[in-house]
Amino acid sequence: MKLKHALETQLAETIKQIKPFNEEAAELAVKHSDSLTKPPGSLGKLETIARQLAGISGELWPDLSHKAVIVMAGDHGVCDEGVSAFPQAVTPQMVLNFLSGGAAVNVLARQAGADVVCVDIGVNEDLEHEQLVSRKVVRGTANMAKQPAMTREEAVQAIIVGIEVVNEQVQRGCRLFATGEMGIGNTTASAALTTVLTGLSPEESVGRGTGINDESWTNKVQVVKRAIAVNELDRASVDPIDVLAKVGGAEIAGLVGVIIGAAANGCPVVIDGYISSAAALVASRIAEQTLPFMIASHLSQEQGHLKLLESIGLLPMMQLEMRLGEGTGAVLCFHFIDAALHLMNEMATFESAGVSKG
Amino acid sequence: MKLKHALETQLAETIKQIKPFNEEAAELAVKHSDSLTKPPGSLGKLETIARQLAGISGELWPDLSHKAVIVMAGDHGVCDEGVSAFPQAVTPQMVLNFLSGGAAVNVLARQAGADVVCVDIGVNEDLEHEQLVSRKVVRGTANMAKQPAMTREEAVQAIIVGIEVVNEQVQRGCRLFATGEMGIGNTTASAALTTVLTGLSPEESVGRGTGINDESWTNKVQVVKRAIAVNELDRASVDPIDVLAKVGGAEIAGLVGVIIGAAANGCPVVIDGYISSAAALVASRIAEQTLPFMIASHLSQEQGHLKLLESIGLLPMMQLEMRLGEGTGAVLCFHFIDAALHLMNEMATFESAGVSKG
Repeated sequence: MKLKHALETQLAETIKQIKPFNEEAAELAVKHSDSLTKPPGSLGKLETIARQLAGISGELWPDLSHKAVIVMAGDHGVCDEGVSAFPQAVTPQMVLNFLSGGAAVNVLARQAGADVVCVDIGVNEDLEHEQLVSRKVVRGTANMAKQPAMTREEAVQAIIVGIEVVNEQVQRGCRLFATGEMGIGNTTASAALTTVLTGLSPEESVGRGTGINDESWTNKVQVVKRAIAVNELDRASVDPIDVLAKVGGAEIAGLVGVIIGAAANGCPVVIDGYISSAAALVASRIAEQTLPFMIASHLSQEQGHLKLLESIGLLPMMQLEMRLGEGTGAVLCFHFIDAALHLMNEMATFESAGVSKG
Repeated sequence: MKLKHALETQLAETIKQIKPFNEEAAELAVKHSDSLTKPPGSLGKLETIARQLAGISGELWPDLSHKAVIVMAGDHGVCDEGVSAFPQAVTPQMVLNFLSGGAAVNVLARQAGADVVCVDIGVNEDLEHEQLVSRKVVRGTANMAKQPAMTREEAVQAIIVGIEVVNEQVQRGCRLFATGEMGIGNTTASAALTTVLTGLSPEESVGRGTGINDESWTNKVQVVKRAIAVNELDRASVDPIDVLAKVGGAEIAGLVGVIIGAAANGCPVVIDGYISSAAALVASRIAEQTLPFMIASHLSQEQGHLKLLESIGLLPMMQLEMRLGEGTGAVLCFHFIDAALHLMNEMATFESAGVSKG
């Protein structure tokens, strides 16, 4: 119980460090943006991002050039229920792919000038690699359709791992984060989290994941219902950490920590697809002070994603019909963040360019 | 009449050069994409782009690193009717801003590694600058609410300018284009083109442009109706060049030429917002062979944009609530095109990475 107490205290201390959004800096950013040679607001969400980055950092155009996507990897006991189109062995195989630079997120991160930080937080296999951040909390979760996926202590420990990984990257100079994940079975856990925390039905929150057919989808819905019933979460549970432990996953908890850690360090964090958004939902329920630090990236093909994002108050910028995870959509969004900062920094003003106002 | 005939012949000859989409290369791209370490189709529109680029170029990952946004600038006589929130003087002022690198499109093009080619095709002022491509066809169009905006000959001449500008850039090594424009009043012309060519009502096709109020919007709708009536285009006109001449604009005709020219040179062309999409609509009606060469970028705030894109069969990738034009959304899309090519070229295959298939 001592460790549990110490971990929960560490989490609470981290949350206390989150500074409020700097409204003054945000308004200065809007004022500057309105002086640039374009109709006010005509750059849409790029202006919204510029305002948000100023409110987060206190600067008009903070230097966010050092950026990273944190890819948390973990396995899911619920795979025993046949919820995925891919075997569980793919999780460690893809981790090695991330480490050798051959996965989609690696390619997109190179293009965006971002680091890929791959964390083994719950893979059900022994993994060793120079570049791997080995912080295993569980060797795969338990099957949530039969019992809690994790203990509460494991969930909190995984959150702390996420916070510490961010702290380490911040010490290396990183100022902008994206969430990424790998874990066969984790759209099932995300759908269960979404169902319990937003009130969506499993039929609304369960999607096709990596590409299951109708029959498997029907089974997946039943599995989510069973997981919620077995864990007695159908009774208006209000403790997000409890829900995360029982029907979440280690990598999802790790991303909750990444979001809280980024906020505590005053860094914006870009939210990827469905699984990352489930983590964002949990993070917002644990500490709503994290919300101003989040930037939504893309709307995925996973059917519950839009409602999930809406429940957190986030608006996606891209509709690319992607459904890969890994942080791929979030890393693409880095180009928009760069764009917002370049525009603020480099555009001429009406005055400097001698352009008439409307 | 000789010049007119020569120009129309030149246009017809250019259209004849457009090669059909290479279905074989496109299918090879899909096959390669399906061998990469991700569920098939999970990269969504990025995979669609990769397929399209292969079908256009005949190569799996063509080198499109040399790219340019062509910004066509022209004035509109219809500004006399009070349709814009900005004075007409802003058109030449913004041209100078493009040439000194201070406009939004310059900033975004620098970030994307693209050239900005600014063309005076119809500005109502004498402009001189070393970097300006001076190809003035008209000194502003006539007021379409009272008479045809241009003669048919002027419209065709402006299309030829667009083709020739693309030819020049291709000779310099450019292989990827984006459409951009500047012209106070040009959402009015675009709405008129959209109304005549798609059957949308002016109430559906007229938007807020740079930011007009309700009263000005009502007036803008009436102006579009008047322009269509005065030019007798309410009688199921089927000649797109005739419609372009009567209610279009020089810069819109120039972009029609850019699209046709890109297709004739076997180059993909990214379509920006509402005005560029109106040009794409006209180009597709003049030569439907141009359609496979077009890539839609963003959905703008201009209310008729989605239906306009749908009428051409294009799907936008970004929803950034932008309404600036200049090519800004198209240039942002260059990052996605780069991403699609990098993914095809750099991702590991299931075999090379030792990842199990589903």
